[in-house]
Amino acid sequence: MTTPAGQLSEPEDVALKQLYDDFDRAALMPLWTQREEMMSLVPSPGAVPACWRWATLFPLASRAGELVPVGRGGERRAIALANPGIPGRPFTTATLWAAIQFLGPHESAPAHRHSQTAFRFVVEGEGVWTNVDGDAVAMRRGDLLLTPSWHFHEHHNTTDKPMAWLDGLDIPLVHQLDAGFFELGPDTLTTAATPARSVSERLWGHPGLLPAAMPARPNSPLMAYRWIHTDAALSDQLACEAEGVPATVEPGHGAVRFTNPTTGGDVLRTIRTEMHRLRAGVTTTRVRTVGSSVWQVFEGSGTVYVADQSFEVATGDVVAVPSWQKLTIEATTGLDLFRFGDDPVYEALGLARTVRGEDGTR
Amino acid sequence: MTTPAGQLSEPEDVALKQLYDDFDRAALMPLWTQREEMMSLVPSPGAVPACWRWATLFPLASRAGELVPVGRGGERRAIALANPGIPGRPFTTATLWAAIQFLGPHESAPAHRHSQTAFRFVVEGEGVWTNVDGDAVAMRRGDLLLTPSWHFHEHHNTTDKPMAWLDGLDIPLVHQLDAGFFELGPDTLTTAATPARSVSERLWGHPGLLPAAMPARPNSPLMAYRWIHTDAALSDQLACEAEGVPATVEPGHGAVRFTNPTTGGDVLRTIRTEMHRLRAGVTTTRVRTVGSSVWQVFEGSGTVYVADQSFEVATGDVVAVPSWQKLTIEATTGLDLFRFGDDPVYEALGLARTVRGEDGTR
Amino acid sequence: MTTPAGQLSEPEDVALKQLYDDFDRAALMPLWTQREEMMSLVPSPGAVPACWRWATLFPLASRAGELVPVGRGGERRAIALANPGIPGRPFTTATLWAAIQFLGPHESAPAHRHSQTAFRFVVEGEGVWTNVDGDAVAMRRGDLLLTPSWHFHEHHNTTDKPMAWLDGLDIPLVHQLDAGFFELGPDTLTTAATPARSVSERLWGHPGLLPAAMPARPNSPLMAYRWIHTDAALSDQLACEAEGVPATVEPGHGAVRFTNPTTGGDVLRTIRTEMHRLRAGVTTTRVRTVGSSVWQVFEGSGTVYVADQSFEVATGDVVAVPSWQKLTIEATTGLDLFRFGDDPVYEALGLARTVRGEDGTR
Amino acid sequence: MTTPAGQLSEPEDVALKQLYDDFDRAALMPLWTQREEMMSLVPSPGAVPACWRWATLFPLASRAGELVPVGRGGERRAIALANPGIPGRPFTTATLWAAIQFLGPHESAPAHRHSQTAFRFVVEGEGVWTNVDGDAVAMRRGDLLLTPSWHFHEHHNTTDKPMAWLDGLDIPLVHQLDAGFFELGPDTLTTAATPARSVSERLWGHPGLLPAAMPARPNSPLMAYRWIHTDAALSDQLACEAEGVPATVEPGHGAVRFTNPTTGGDVLRTIRTEMHRLRAGVTTTRVRTVGSSVWQVFEGSGTVYVADQSFEVATGDVVAVPSWQKLTIEATTGLDLFRFGDDPVYEALGLARTVRGEDGTR
Repeated sequence: MTTPAGQLSEPEDVALKQLYDDFDRAALMPLWTQREEMMSLVPSPGAVPACWRWATLFPLASRAGELVPVGRGGERRAIALANPGIPGRPFTTATLWAAIQFLGPHESAPAHRHSQTAFRFVVEGEGVWTNVDGDAVAMRRGDLLLTPSWHFHEHHNTTDKPMAWLDGLDIPLVHQLDAGFFELGPDTLTTAATPARSVSERLWGHPGLLPAAMPARPNSPLMAYRWIHTDAALSDQLACEAEGVPATVEPGHGAVRFTNPTTGGDVLRTIRTEMHRLRAGVTTTRVRTVGSSVWQVFEGSGTVYVADQSFEVATGDVVAVPSWQKLTIEATTGLDLFRFGDDPVYEALGLARTVRGEDGTR
Repeated sequence: MTTPAGQLSEPEDVALKQLYDDFDRAALMPLWTQREEMMSLVPSPGAVPACWRWATLFPLASRAGELVPVGRGGERRAIALANPGIPGRPFTTATLWAAIQFLGPHESAPAHRHSQTAFRFVVEGEGVWTNVDGDAVAMRRGDLLLTPSWHFHEHHNTTDKPMAWLDGLDIPLVHQLDAGFFELGPDTLTTAATPARSVSERLWGHPGLLPAAMPARPNSPLMAYRWIHTDAALSDQLACEAEGVPATVEPGHGAVRFTNPTTGGDVLRTIRTEMHRLRAGVTTTRVRTVGSSVWQVFEGSGTVYVADQSFEVATGDVVAVPSWQKLTIEATTGLDLFRFGDDPVYEALGLARTVRGEDGTR
Repeated sequence: MTTPAGQLSEPEDVALKQLYDDFDRAALMPLWTQREEMMSLVPSPGAVPACWRWATLFPLASRAGELVPVGRGGERRAIALANPGIPGRPFTTATLWAAIQFLGPHESAPAHRHSQTAFRFVVEGEGVWTNVDGDAVAMRRGDLLLTPSWHFHEHHNTTDKPMAWLDGLDIPLVHQLDAGFFELGPDTLTTAATPARSVSERLWGHPGLLPAAMPARPNSPLMAYRWIHTDAALSDQLACEAEGVPATVEPGHGAVRFTNPTTGGDVLRTIRTEMHRLRAGVTTTRVRTVGSSVWQVFEGSGTVYVADQSFEVATGDVVAVPSWQKLTIEATTGLDLFRFGDDPVYEALGLARTVRGEDGTR
Repeated sequence: MTTPAGQLSEPEDVALKQLYDDFDRAALMPLWTQREEMMSLVPSPGAVPACWRWATLFPLASRAGELVPVGRGGERRAIALANPGIPGRPFTTATLWAAIQFLGPHESAPAHRHSQTAFRFVVEGEGVWTNVDGDAVAMRRGDLLLTPSWHFHEHHNTTDKPMAWLDGLDIPLVHQLDAGFFELGPDTLTTAATPARSVSERLWGHPGLLPAAMPARPNSPLMAYRWIHTDAALSDQLACEAEGVPATVEPGHGAVRFTNPTTGGDVLRTIRTEMHRLRAGVTTTRVRTVGSSVWQVFEGSGTVYVADQSFEVATGDVVAVPSWQKLTIEATTGLDLFRFGDDPVYEALGLARTVRGEDGTR
């Protein structure tokens, strides 16, 4: 706290105390006692760098699968990665919610929709279909599946095995903004179809081609981004680099952004999604960004440095990077990482800042 | 809380408790115990409808003027209107900070800049100049003065009388987003000039005319919106209405938006500002909006209904309207109100919703 | 013409002639005989630099006033400045049409509307009202008055004196694009009102203030830009420059752009309008721009250099500047010039290019 | 011509003639004698509906292949489809230039670049590579290949057979606008590489995925749109329609637009490109559009009705549709058609209008 006053005589001290009491009674708080906290020199997030292990997440989710039914009320067997720096809240960062969702053999999760924007990323397994506004979308390893704001969605597992995946939402952001609406859909599955390709992929998933009769949309109309394409794009990017063509983010570090084909912008209005591929041995340039992100290792192993912490990571592990914390990634093996972040929020509000390579060292 | 389980046998109960303990140790929180709070059916803001009286604010600010010096550290003698529904935080609503700022005779507040976006609105008095990036801007009754994000600003009172005004900032939003930077400027006044018109008004304040050599900017380059123009615009609007020309928001209710002349959009990227004028006897249509706003009576008296509360208001009184709360205003006399809101945030993020006239009755 | 062939044997020559005949019969034209004309190294406009004198224009328009009635069919007593380089067409440049329009005492010109975008600029006189979609707009010296695409408009002279002004339209552009629609309005005046301020000025003419209830529009909703504001903006700009504040286009050369207050962009989608003020003795930097413009001296005298020509100009004189021709203006006295150009067209289509100061010399 | 005057006495007649002579000497043209032509009630294009047969085009291009070398000056062996309604100009419509380009076995066409925007569409054959700013792009049947404004490009045929294709450019538009620049590149081929996929496809051709490090561009960075994708997209669209999902333009009529993946907009700033597929027996709804288009049959046969004309068409045939002319297409067999149009120009300038289904009958 900054006390603006210097030496106060005793009567002044009494008067000041009385003033503060009167402020309190009048629902007032002076800036001068709050300035340093409310207007810090640089962002000082409550959230801390944190890492969750797939080796921990999956067994816990499995146990939940045995003990906790999926159904109305709870709605989803999703277990949030709750940042230790934000006690009592299921927030992975100040704006982002990441969870492992688990669906047992032949289980289904009922339809609902909400203002919160969601996606699923599949680190292993297959056999679940997510129906988005009635369109059945297969979920398979490496795929990114979207559920934009206010789209009905339900999930069902068609196999004899359980399946788990990463859910990403902007729950903390929408909560802070008091902007959330929620609505239940039908209690029973609206479609049991299990097509290999969703309607959305058939209409919007051809490169550079859009239906001539359909207008642009603020969120992507393409609900599935398949691993076969993502993998090929990353391979091509690194191969171009090897041929001397500018293509990658930095040497040995390829990255693609998942985009809304009708605008070229982010797939979702509040969440950016990307897949990164590092060649074995590469260390990324240190970067600080206003806004937070969550990384999940898709394949390979390495070390993630966030602020003054480091996490050795392997397939499925998840790392939270709070706002303005230095981030560097070292690839031990070739390393594929999925990233999602709140970048579109800061860009839309004029609050984005990024610094690369600061300090020279890692 | 929603417990998804029905009847659990005792061993299951033990297992569930163990699971929750293990979640806790692993920094996990299940959605099914949090869903109703985190994903409510409609926005359920912590902030409550609240009203602060000018008759209370001004004397308390005056007392602070006697007891609390202005200077480095505290930076400003600004006293925030702290919403009773958000304990321990100087937040007027979930995203907005409103304060009364008080500057004694011949006092000055030193230069600084910050990511937070700010404006001042003057309900009474004159004689202070605010220097924005070196441009001296007079502050007078009815004027709106801007300090966009990351512009240096300092204030100085050139008169023998104190002056107080309303400060509006997006401190809560920037705090939640961990996006704030803050920098001190020189300790002494950078200019003591007291021009009647600022450079910004001379370059950008001519209707429909912009300097041909200067590009558009995301925040308004016009730092002062003078009461003489605002008053004339509102009078014209109501006069047009009286002649049968569509002009007003609704019958007897004129309103102008303060805009960035280089884009036609809001003056500030995160805050909308408007002045409303109601004819005596008019009751506005009930409206609910996602996002919050703060209203200050500039002149006249009436009643403001927010959710299930009502506040009889007069010149200088301030009312906070949390997200999605019903709002109606009744004008006893002709009533001029200044409004600021976080609307641009919700529009930029695709989270805006407004319903008018719902339920028919107030 | 470029003949690609080198030496052709006689049979080849016959065969080539036969080929060209066959092309002709098949409605074909080879590129190789057209390339140099169709794809020149730099723009080679048909239009030439040209100047029309107010001392010529006004008397000729007056004679037309005596001999040619205004009415249905011809619609307007407007006499186009027809570029000598574009024979048989009433085109001032490749895209722009400028004309002197003349309305005798108490005459009126009947209502119509068209796809072509129009404005009027008044170099002298007053007393005519132009009714734009029923809104009566006074025309006075120094004013810019708009008639955006597809707005009904009619003019009537309320005085005992004739009045003449400059009309600017995009007739050549719309003609080349086969995009014109035209519709007659009522034969008799829709309103004889002569208000000092139009509704459009009352709703949209307050600096930085817009009606809160009315959305943005692609063309300006403000139909009149008054000389009192334009003059003040130019004076302020040059005064700021004198105080060392960056404000002008270049030293001694102030300029304002007339803008759509709802977007900050040009007032009309196809035409840019500006007013320039040069201090006595100033010579502007030589500039070449893709696209054409038309300049009218509003007050003062000087010399306008276009390509290899020069024109000594005084109040009311009009100069056409074709695409990519070097332009320099020397102010003998203080010099105010109105400019309109087709810049928005080239910017919208990605065809804009400008080079300043090329060659060092004038 | 519309003479505004009624009965003129003889002296008036003399005076009027004198006035017109004086107008002429002063480089003036009255509106009232030009109004009907310059401001017609609806667009009255000079261009007429026209059809060119592939069976005519290809043999004539082959003869040119024997007689006319490709090289500097002529630059390309391209033969424009010259609209009979625009005599003396190689313009297919008022804004568009379509040509058949022919490259003999092992020939190459040297590098140049120009402001004019270009594409190639391949109706048959393969074996030519077009190098766009050094990136070698294979040309094969059904592919659309881009050469945006100011990109260097050269073509070379790697086979023992000739190849011909359709070129589309905005030459007439750029000519009318006096906006063209042209620059020669190296005289010899910059690369003889013949990769199956261009760099542009490797970086930008993955559905919904963009390189994270590369910003949006006004023209598409993807230089090749392959038939395999276009065909699949059209098949998917019609299959979706058959399943009852809204997907097509109208029953039995699928269409995809080629888009810039970084913006979702048209591939080129001045030209729209689309592929249409009609089921056998389908007749499209009659449509009128401001702006012109050119259609080429890719496969199948049918009848194209334009204004009061009809053309029976088969593979390779090209039809020009001038502005505002009624268009209907009947598919005899299943019918694939490539279309390009100037729609982006009219949309950017606020001049677009389309009417569908007018008059009920074809």
